[in-house]
Amino acid sequence: MRISFCCANVEAAPWLQGLRAALPQATVEEWQPGAPQADHAVVWAPPQRFLDEQPRLKGIFAIGAGVDALLKLAVPAGALVVRIDDGGMAVQMAEYVCHAAIRHFRELDAYDADVRQGLWSFRRPHERSDFPVGVMGLGVLGQRVARALAHFEFPVLGWSRTPRDVPGIRCYAGREQFGDFLERSRILVCLLPLTPETEGIMNADHLSRLLPGGYVINVARGAHLVDEDLIALLDSGRLAGATLDVFRTEPLPPQHPFWRHPRITVTPHTSARTLRDESIAQIAGKILALGRGEPIAGVVDLERGY
Amino acid sequence: MRISFCCANVEAAPWLQGLRAALPQATVEEWQPGAPQADHAVVWAPPQRFLDEQPRLKGIFAIGAGVDALLKLAVPAGALVVRIDDGGMAVQMAEYVCHAAIRHFRELDAYDADVRQGLWSFRRPHERSDFPVGVMGLGVLGQRVARALAHFEFPVLGWSRTPRDVPGIRCYAGREQFGDFLERSRILVCLLPLTPETEGIMNADHLSRLLPGGYVINVARGAHLVDEDLIALLDSGRLAGATLDVFRTEPLPPQHPFWRHPRITVTPHTSARTLRDESIAQIAGKILALGRGEPIAGVVDLERGY
Repeated sequence: MRISFCCANVEAAPWLQGLRAALPQATVEEWQPGAPQADHAVVWAPPQRFLDEQPRLKGIFAIGAGVDALLKLAVPAGALVVRIDDGGMAVQMAEYVCHAAIRHFRELDAYDADVRQGLWSFRRPHERSDFPVGVMGLGVLGQRVARALAHFEFPVLGWSRTPRDVPGIRCYAGREQFGDFLERSRILVCLLPLTPETEGIMNADHLSRLLPGGYVINVARGAHLVDEDLIALLDSGRLAGATLDVFRTEPLPPQHPFWRHPRITVTPHTSARTLRDESIAQIAGKILALGRGEPIAGVVDLERGY
Repeated sequence: MRISFCCANVEAAPWLQGLRAALPQATVEEWQPGAPQADHAVVWAPPQRFLDEQPRLKGIFAIGAGVDALLKLAVPAGALVVRIDDGGMAVQMAEYVCHAAIRHFRELDAYDADVRQGLWSFRRPHERSDFPVGVMGLGVLGQRVARALAHFEFPVLGWSRTPRDVPGIRCYAGREQFGDFLERSRILVCLLPLTPETEGIMNADHLSRLLPGGYVINVARGAHLVDEDLIALLDSGRLAGATLDVFRTEPLPPQHPFWRHPRITVTPHTSARTLRDESIAQIAGKILALGRGEPIAGVVDLERGY
């Protein structure tokens, strides 16, 4: 069995070493143009040429959860596209989103600004019941984030394409319930896959339906958000703020207004990193399962796009 | 029944209104020197004169969880001193401590500093297993905080005066196990009551036993910490940082070095506010239970000090 590793902006050596240790029967090599055809590929942002040269691939394992960029390429017919299910990312997402929600709810930025000026200040605490959090996307990551928010006793709403039932979360589904979901949410968290249906879903029309004082947390993809619409709603006072970890262009271009907007917190796509050891173990386990003819989790529906 | 309200720095009117609504059979009044003797008192930082004039008190209900200041006064013999059990504070503590722990673990201050300079930066994520969190104090608040940290999959240790058994938390108890507890903790959270035994417990000797890169979160009382010892350990690099919400003198004096220390995050005693409505309901319920001769929670052991 031959496995080809082709990941942009990733240090290859520890991945190759880990995959070889986990699959001693396989030949694991970093891809070079013209390399022998492989049975499986481990990829992140591969060039089209890589896929063109690998018509025999049975499995294409992306080392992240979002496969939108991969699906813009022509994938060899018959190959399964597989994404990381969790790989340690779910708890990181829960951490990042709860940190942002707490920071906003508890006004910790405002306290920080006061402390920088040497001011010992008091703000009347908000009522938790006034801060319902709506989570868009209820896959592995979305459910984990919703559960963490509920742990802190925020009212939590969830919205997904198809109906879901998550204990403790008020679930909405489909286009027909999207308006109700938005109108009952104050903090909006995006954990959707990026597909033609979800691109630009955070636009002026939808964001202006949030409860007064609306706040946006985007940890999915930059293209879910219409940047200009967010800025207009912040500047008009319709929205209170945003924490953004993902952007239409990354790194975020130097001139982009998000960098210095007073109500936007920017982080450099750090909400959830693929954890190498957990991901290697997961991918190796799935390759072995495929070899035994067993079903595996995380197979992408190419039609649906996630 | 007469209830006297005597709370410094608290807006009396909504408390009086709430207590009157919850206990319509009682006369509820704000204390004035020379006022009639009451059966119960609702207090925060009362003057000694208040207690001297109220020898008939059956219950003295503090509107916070920490009663160290109250216990420095001479309390009428036979009066029960009662503290708020939770009153909405536990979830706030959990929020505050998790926010601080996540902010440190995920290096969000460093990312923030980069973003302020327009830098899109990358830091290799830490391993969660390298950040065990030790919680000192396993009462209602400490257990709630420990549970929230465990929700984010941090290894969580707990230490208390007497042995406790908290699911998912590695529990240590008493002086003889304190060293082991410290030596296995990297982030140290203080939720102890302030008593002669715990005053100054975060001193150079104890703090220097934390794992390398130790971090302190104090949400209990300022006097638990020896300020100069913390600063010396931070400046020598033995500790990585601290988030402090409570101080020996509050407001924190303008010249205190904590205000501007680069590795200390200061907040103005905001980690958990008494929530009025929940506290009124709790105090009213306890007054009624005492009237029926039933036991109540939150009675302070005056010997033990909490």
